[in-house]
Amino acid sequence: MATLIRTNRDVDEAFLPTARTMKALVFAKPGVVELREKPIPAVGPTDALMRVTLTTICGTDVHILKGEYPVREGLTIGHEPVGVIAALGSAVTGYRVGQRVIAGAITPCGQCGPCLDGVHSQCGGKAMGGWRFGNTIDGCQAEFVLVPSAQANLAPIPDTLTDEQVLMCPDIMSTGFGGAESGKIRIGDTVAVFAQGPIGLCATAGARLRGASRIIVVDRLAGRLAVARTLGADDVVDASTTDPVEAIMTLTKGRGVDVAIEALGLPQTFESALRVLRPGGTLSSLGVYSGKLTLPLDAFAAGLGDHTIVTTLCPGGHERMRRLMSTLEHGRVDLRPLVTHRYPLDRIVEAYDLFGAQRDGVLKVAITP
Amino acid sequence: MATLIRTNRDVDEAFLPTARTMKALVFAKPGVVELREKPIPAVGPTDALMRVTLTTICGTDVHILKGEYPVREGLTIGHEPVGVIAALGSAVTGYRVGQRVIAGAITPCGQCGPCLDGVHSQCGGKAMGGWRFGNTIDGCQAEFVLVPSAQANLAPIPDTLTDEQVLMCPDIMSTGFGGAESGKIRIGDTVAVFAQGPIGLCATAGARLRGASRIIVVDRLAGRLAVARTLGADDVVDASTTDPVEAIMTLTKGRGVDVAIEALGLPQTFESALRVLRPGGTLSSLGVYSGKLTLPLDAFAAGLGDHTIVTTLCPGGHERMRRLMSTLEHGRVDLRPLVTHRYPLDRIVEAYDLFGAQRDGVLKVAITP
Amino acid sequence: MATLIRTNRDVDEAFLPTARTMKALVFAKPGVVELREKPIPAVGPTDALMRVTLTTICGTDVHILKGEYPVREGLTIGHEPVGVIAALGSAVTGYRVGQRVIAGAITPCGQCGPCLDGVHSQCGGKAMGGWRFGNTIDGCQAEFVLVPSAQANLAPIPDTLTDEQVLMCPDIMSTGFGGAESGKIRIGDTVAVFAQGPIGLCATAGARLRGASRIIVVDRLAGRLAVARTLGADDVVDASTTDPVEAIMTLTKGRGVDVAIEALGLPQTFESALRVLRPGGTLSSLGVYSGKLTLPLDAFAAGLGDHTIVTTLCPGGHERMRRLMSTLEHGRVDLRPLVTHRYPLDRIVEAYDLFGAQRDGVLKVAITP
Amino acid sequence: MATLIRTNRDVDEAFLPTARTMKALVFAKPGVVELREKPIPAVGPTDALMRVTLTTICGTDVHILKGEYPVREGLTIGHEPVGVIAALGSAVTGYRVGQRVIAGAITPCGQCGPCLDGVHSQCGGKAMGGWRFGNTIDGCQAEFVLVPSAQANLAPIPDTLTDEQVLMCPDIMSTGFGGAESGKIRIGDTVAVFAQGPIGLCATAGARLRGASRIIVVDRLAGRLAVARTLGADDVVDASTTDPVEAIMTLTKGRGVDVAIEALGLPQTFESALRVLRPGGTLSSLGVYSGKLTLPLDAFAAGLGDHTIVTTLCPGGHERMRRLMSTLEHGRVDLRPLVTHRYPLDRIVEAYDLFGAQRDGVLKVAITP
Repeated sequence: MATLIRTNRDVDEAFLPTARTMKALVFAKPGVVELREKPIPAVGPTDALMRVTLTTICGTDVHILKGEYPVREGLTIGHEPVGVIAALGSAVTGYRVGQRVIAGAITPCGQCGPCLDGVHSQCGGKAMGGWRFGNTIDGCQAEFVLVPSAQANLAPIPDTLTDEQVLMCPDIMSTGFGGAESGKIRIGDTVAVFAQGPIGLCATAGARLRGASRIIVVDRLAGRLAVARTLGADDVVDASTTDPVEAIMTLTKGRGVDVAIEALGLPQTFESALRVLRPGGTLSSLGVYSGKLTLPLDAFAAGLGDHTIVTTLCPGGHERMRRLMSTLEHGRVDLRPLVTHRYPLDRIVEAYDLFGAQRDGVLKVAITP
Repeated sequence: MATLIRTNRDVDEAFLPTARTMKALVFAKPGVVELREKPIPAVGPTDALMRVTLTTICGTDVHILKGEYPVREGLTIGHEPVGVIAALGSAVTGYRVGQRVIAGAITPCGQCGPCLDGVHSQCGGKAMGGWRFGNTIDGCQAEFVLVPSAQANLAPIPDTLTDEQVLMCPDIMSTGFGGAESGKIRIGDTVAVFAQGPIGLCATAGARLRGASRIIVVDRLAGRLAVARTLGADDVVDASTTDPVEAIMTLTKGRGVDVAIEALGLPQTFESALRVLRPGGTLSSLGVYSGKLTLPLDAFAAGLGDHTIVTTLCPGGHERMRRLMSTLEHGRVDLRPLVTHRYPLDRIVEAYDLFGAQRDGVLKVAITP
Repeated sequence: MATLIRTNRDVDEAFLPTARTMKALVFAKPGVVELREKPIPAVGPTDALMRVTLTTICGTDVHILKGEYPVREGLTIGHEPVGVIAALGSAVTGYRVGQRVIAGAITPCGQCGPCLDGVHSQCGGKAMGGWRFGNTIDGCQAEFVLVPSAQANLAPIPDTLTDEQVLMCPDIMSTGFGGAESGKIRIGDTVAVFAQGPIGLCATAGARLRGASRIIVVDRLAGRLAVARTLGADDVVDASTTDPVEAIMTLTKGRGVDVAIEALGLPQTFESALRVLRPGGTLSSLGVYSGKLTLPLDAFAAGLGDHTIVTTLCPGGHERMRRLMSTLEHGRVDLRPLVTHRYPLDRIVEAYDLFGAQRDGVLKVAITP
Repeated sequence: MATLIRTNRDVDEAFLPTARTMKALVFAKPGVVELREKPIPAVGPTDALMRVTLTTICGTDVHILKGEYPVREGLTIGHEPVGVIAALGSAVTGYRVGQRVIAGAITPCGQCGPCLDGVHSQCGGKAMGGWRFGNTIDGCQAEFVLVPSAQANLAPIPDTLTDEQVLMCPDIMSTGFGGAESGKIRIGDTVAVFAQGPIGLCATAGARLRGASRIIVVDRLAGRLAVARTLGADDVVDASTTDPVEAIMTLTKGRGVDVAIEALGLPQTFESALRVLRPGGTLSSLGVYSGKLTLPLDAFAAGLGDHTIVTTLCPGGHERMRRLMSTLEHGRVDLRPLVTHRYPLDRIVEAYDLFGAQRDGVLKVAITP
């Protein structure tokens, strides 16, 4: 084991890999991801090795697969790990091997300038600097994943929660709730959420949790609108048949909404979100945009509407994960309906195919290594 | 009617008093309130006359009755009006006589320095300056009440809500929710609420609405603890049999709570609230204190614990009322269980007796003029 | 006087007009403003009549003159009044005729939903709803101006300050400082301000006042950059010879700025402001934009940079004015250098010509009726 | 050197100790501190060893000396280090031996729950948990000091600043400014600062830096009041001859102040701070209290004044230090006048005597090892 683990301070044989290699889904070339055998990573002093017991696929992973978001060849993809601590770096304290944990999609160090300033997602001061898994370091669609800055990122799972219950915490729950939080929703607010994919659905649940008194959601898929209702939507707008801006302005009697959350990443929904916003309102943007993003000057009141536009990258770190799991533990929200499909890691390429094509009412796919 | 209404711009005979006097409950002397015939008030340019259709009794009213909070002899008591607009001052626009409205217990002018600065409850810059009804001007335990700064204070009731559904908005819902809001509760917070009288119960509902993931409530009455569970409490502590500080520290495994809300007004509960607070936590105080209020230095970390203590006087104004009614309208919370008793105005003195003695499981008493 | 003043509660003959008409600069047609004789306005119950003793011309007025911002024919232009109370409406209390006052460019009512919610500039809920002077009602480039919602808008001038000292308060000081405030500048921040016209200069002074430790300003005019240094700029970038984005990134060693303030209103400066922003930073926008406003996706990190974009319309109301005058009174800032030219009202058309062409180093022109 | 440094990754002989022991001022018993020879500490993976080039004595150290604040016998005292990196732990990156640095008095880990939540001073979740130097671990009144969580705490000193210029950053500047920041001072606020010792003086400078338009300071020593004027005080109240509450209420014409900062730690000044606070105002408390701390109910409006009381423990971490040094670098404030005396480490016991007795106009004493 010498090559694998640099420290033996806290190692329980039961959780250690019996082999030196593992299966991992890597980016091969645009359009191709494939399962490969890769070395199980060595553990540095501030790292932890997590044996992955459950993970999932994110829309971002599909962008990576398609080559739309570039990562290096051979990188293991995936940033939503649920698992068990297999080994701990020498400088990591307060955890034990064998402990069930999750880590956020974003793994801030906690100790750089931006982290100390509270901007953990932009760790290191580079845009998206806190997003490492499946982006700048190997991710978690694999049997093992190395967690950097483990002291800041290992979040123990309460015994009362299953792996599947916490599977949304690392990314979409944190992101969706983050959209509601960044919108600074107040009791009595009317909130619109554009798109009810997994992140939009979590934004809806988050808006409910923050005290929005009326939540209007928009999507083109009836199935997603139905799930939205169970998570807190009061009004649903089917964008496949209705103009969402017109519908929302009618529903609000011309007043507009206090907070609009964009959870898709299209210039058109971004603009629509701005168009339904009351003067003084906040557009909370979660989408990853491509193409040309324009601020329509009429909706933007030529810059004089006291509008706020705020973007949020999935908050990470173990404290964030603890808080999210706490809401699950106490029954504030139940996101299990989002797991619509389950695959073993061996068949993950099939799962990508299903998820990428949004077939069969898929919301999220649970992957078991 | 000339002496009654200075303007006839917008008067509908149907809503006007047919007599020049009305019944009103006035403070006579310490220990004595009595129903008297008083002139129906004249309407100045910025006032509105409201015909009261429902009101209630507040703990503060009992303090007034007892002479503990001094008001002038002959003052009409009561600050929680539900009713119908009977007449509008000449400078008041956008309303119509006959409209169903409420007004908050606090009636800010909206135009003085503190109001323009957002501190509406301290209207005019004097402590509690925004509290006028039943304090510095005639209140609403009467057939009619004059609403000052009507433009800022008349809040139309949505058609879908009954008078009884909105009866808690003017004071205890606004106060209790205000306690949760001032505590700056975040998703995932653990919150303790001390005392589950009507305001404490609303604080519990408010904490739930803001996303607290765990709410621990304290009271000495089993009935109130039971209602608390229906409004969002996860854990209840019966202070008649258990030490609340010890119980809460055990429940939180020594961590303490993120936010503690005091909703009783005793030095002892204030101190307990501080004792269960984690470093960096917030004590949100709603109680009206008498006696000696001390900060225990150990719990206060000698001033080095990054604690915040914040007090909140019931937010008023029609926008606040609109927001509160909006949460009711969309089913976010249902406070009807708080109305445990109903009396006609004629028998309000009996109602005081019941309410003051906290007999018969009373929470709030609806009074119908 | 009967036609002029509806109430005689508080009228001092000395401050009343001796004639029934006054000179006022009105918008005639695109490209033409002209001095006309107009009736002195009648005073309603919530109004005040102000005799204007000093006013000035704003960039917005030039847009109106050119027909770029449409107002109705015959409207009196101007929104920056310094003067003396000539008459008070019957419902206005606490002021006296003869009192020296200013009113903000934005005159919120204080009593509508948005005002009670703290969004005073969007009074009434319509975009820019609080901007009335010279937009939806007659403005102050005239001998008299009627102040609406006078109770919320008359701000007494401290005796120690001259008219000229407070001339910037109604608009550009409030706007510029507002840009610094909305940017939520913290001690130790590096701030960039794009354009150093009157508003940009005030934003620079405001950033200094909020504790920015380093202020980098951009303009194309050496004279303005020189004034900027006196108001708090640490580094100046001459955009006529240097690429501002490159210069700022070099000055900050690639880190970017914490807050960028846009004070011009061009898509190009808006984009540049975004390009120099660190991840997690705030773009505080003051400009009035025309044309196409685009968010460059690289600078915007495709929506994942935790950026905030906030726009601010000049805060108004007497409390705001009091605060601004207070900073002048105690010597925190001196904006007199911004008054570069002085004209009588009779020659205001000449003043427009000078100001519109930005001739002769003009910053602001004081106009005396 | 093997016993001294566990890693040799980044060690420059020039900065390493030539001996294995060093001089350090330790707490011996109540009333006695003494210079002893102690081993130079060994460097763990996340530590750094700093050679101290300048340090100072804090009021808290005097409490420790007197036995009023208990620490273990033999502990090295002092928490305000300026120095040079002598050695770096194996897990610490981005620094180099020989680099001039400071570390804050508070050394948060950045990675525990409270740190990730932004409450760095309460690191670990225990009250004052972030205060380690001279409290729970050896401090810096010594030739060397071991910096824990070095990655989060080493703050490089800009070349343009001398050691003496940055000597106030680790504690009193961070604390005093923190008092102004926690008070949420806004442009135009009137602020009172109670006591103008070193921390109160920094609070005054901080209030100025945040845009307070009027600053009223209170002290009993004319010399301190004179220094206060140079740091931003507008009005000074000599508490040895004047009742501060009365004086401040007169100065503010009965309105009171928006923010009151307590910088002494006496129940009496705490109460006075509350007594001069306007309804809705904030008491920002910096003092370390002993004795009985009471909230006077009249000043506290019986809990209905919308008051906020907030306490602040000196913010630490390298980002905070960078921000503070940045304000010095750009000339926003000059705290050198606070260094009134200078002693070599050998004579530090004398320095304690002088500082403890507040003789000779002493504000802060620079100690050179």
